[in-house]
Amino acid sequence: MPTLYHSPNTRSSRVIAQLLLMGKLDQVNVVIVDVVRNDGSGRADPNNPHPEGKVPFLVTDEGEEIRESAAIMMYLDELYGAPLSIPVGEKGRGTFLSWMMYYGGVVEPAMVAHFSEIRHPAMIGAFRTMTEVGECLTKGLGGKQFFLGDKITLADIIIASAFQWAPHLTPDFDNVKSWFNRVNDALDLEALQAFEARGMETLKKAI
Amino acid sequence: MPTLYHSPNTRSSRVIAQLLLMGKLDQVNVVIVDVVRNDGSGRADPNNPHPEGKVPFLVTDEGEEIRESAAIMMYLDELYGAPLSIPVGEKGRGTFLSWMMYYGGVVEPAMVAHFSEIRHPAMIGAFRTMTEVGECLTKGLGGKQFFLGDKITLADIIIASAFQWAPHLTPDFDNVKSWFNRVNDALDLEALQAFEARGMETLKKAI
Repeated sequence: MPTLYHSPNTRSSRVIAQLLLMGKLDQVNVVIVDVVRNDGSGRADPNNPHPEGKVPFLVTDEGEEIRESAAIMMYLDELYGAPLSIPVGEKGRGTFLSWMMYYGGVVEPAMVAHFSEIRHPAMIGAFRTMTEVGECLTKGLGGKQFFLGDKITLADIIIASAFQWAPHLTPDFDNVKSWFNRVNDALDLEALQAFEARGMETLKKAI
Repeated sequence: MPTLYHSPNTRSSRVIAQLLLMGKLDQVNVVIVDVVRNDGSGRADPNNPHPEGKVPFLVTDEGEEIRESAAIMMYLDELYGAPLSIPVGEKGRGTFLSWMMYYGGVVEPAMVAHFSEIRHPAMIGAFRTMTEVGECLTKGLGGKQFFLGDKITLADIIIASAFQWAPHLTPDFDNVKSWFNRVNDALDLEALQAFEARGMETLKKAI
């Protein structure tokens, strides 16, 4: 089975949320590792094969190494029959790919710049700001339940993960706020929190 | 046919390079638009439907709007039978997805930070620097011809596009430098430059 290197309450938690929603958490070997956190706690874990000590990191049955959340999420979705995406060639495929790339290429840099109070013209030129992110999300959602229509996909899970981490940054639009609640309702956040609590215990014992 | 909004010598040029390599440039309606460039020249073009006035932007036959280079490149590759990717379920698929996400999620922010001389700990914590990018590329390539083996893919085209734009930032490793030359040899850069020159003429006439 694939091995997922995961640290509780980090960027890899959305992969756990996906696996819980797919009912496939027991089909992945999850290895709990430590990471350096924003507050300076934690450490680069020698058991983590990610070249920069980050999470998530996935090693497939064939030994392929996959980094970046969106890539790992798409790979795992495809591995289990694509229940949380729009498959190649189907209506909505382009929109699905667009949101998946938008998350890592725009939302993350805009959010890091926001938190760090970096207001450099080159950053704004390349990635814009959380204001444009909010406008893009409200327009993209429109009156739909989820970004791709009535069906929750990885696009919802990865974009919502940013606001699960920083709820006060949830764009102040009614349709975005109700979408965010809808995603949280669809995910088993209680099971996720229980899984993360056990992961934190594992980490404490390892120190 | 799909409509691609493109501005010469920008981030959308790699999509033109892809279409030239696939022999499909004549099957896409390319609309030349102006953009604000790094040196402050240009303008947000009212003919460009991208919500932030950037390129590339693709509108499909079904009216779907796709932003982000990697998403547009994957969509166009899938539309024409996936000649420049590793299809779903095949060996190398995870590695392919990993490089596609790594480009937008790491290489671009690290490069923008490098050029802007932003050395904020939050940026380095999230994206690291061009040093780690170099190490990741040389390790990922190893002794292979291209990132996925003997076959050039979108991963090579999008990663090489960064160094076509800023050759002095090409990581100083023999295997990376020879890979870069190999990608440039595989692409029809002469045809690309001729296409871009005609695009610049179109833009000048429009002003």
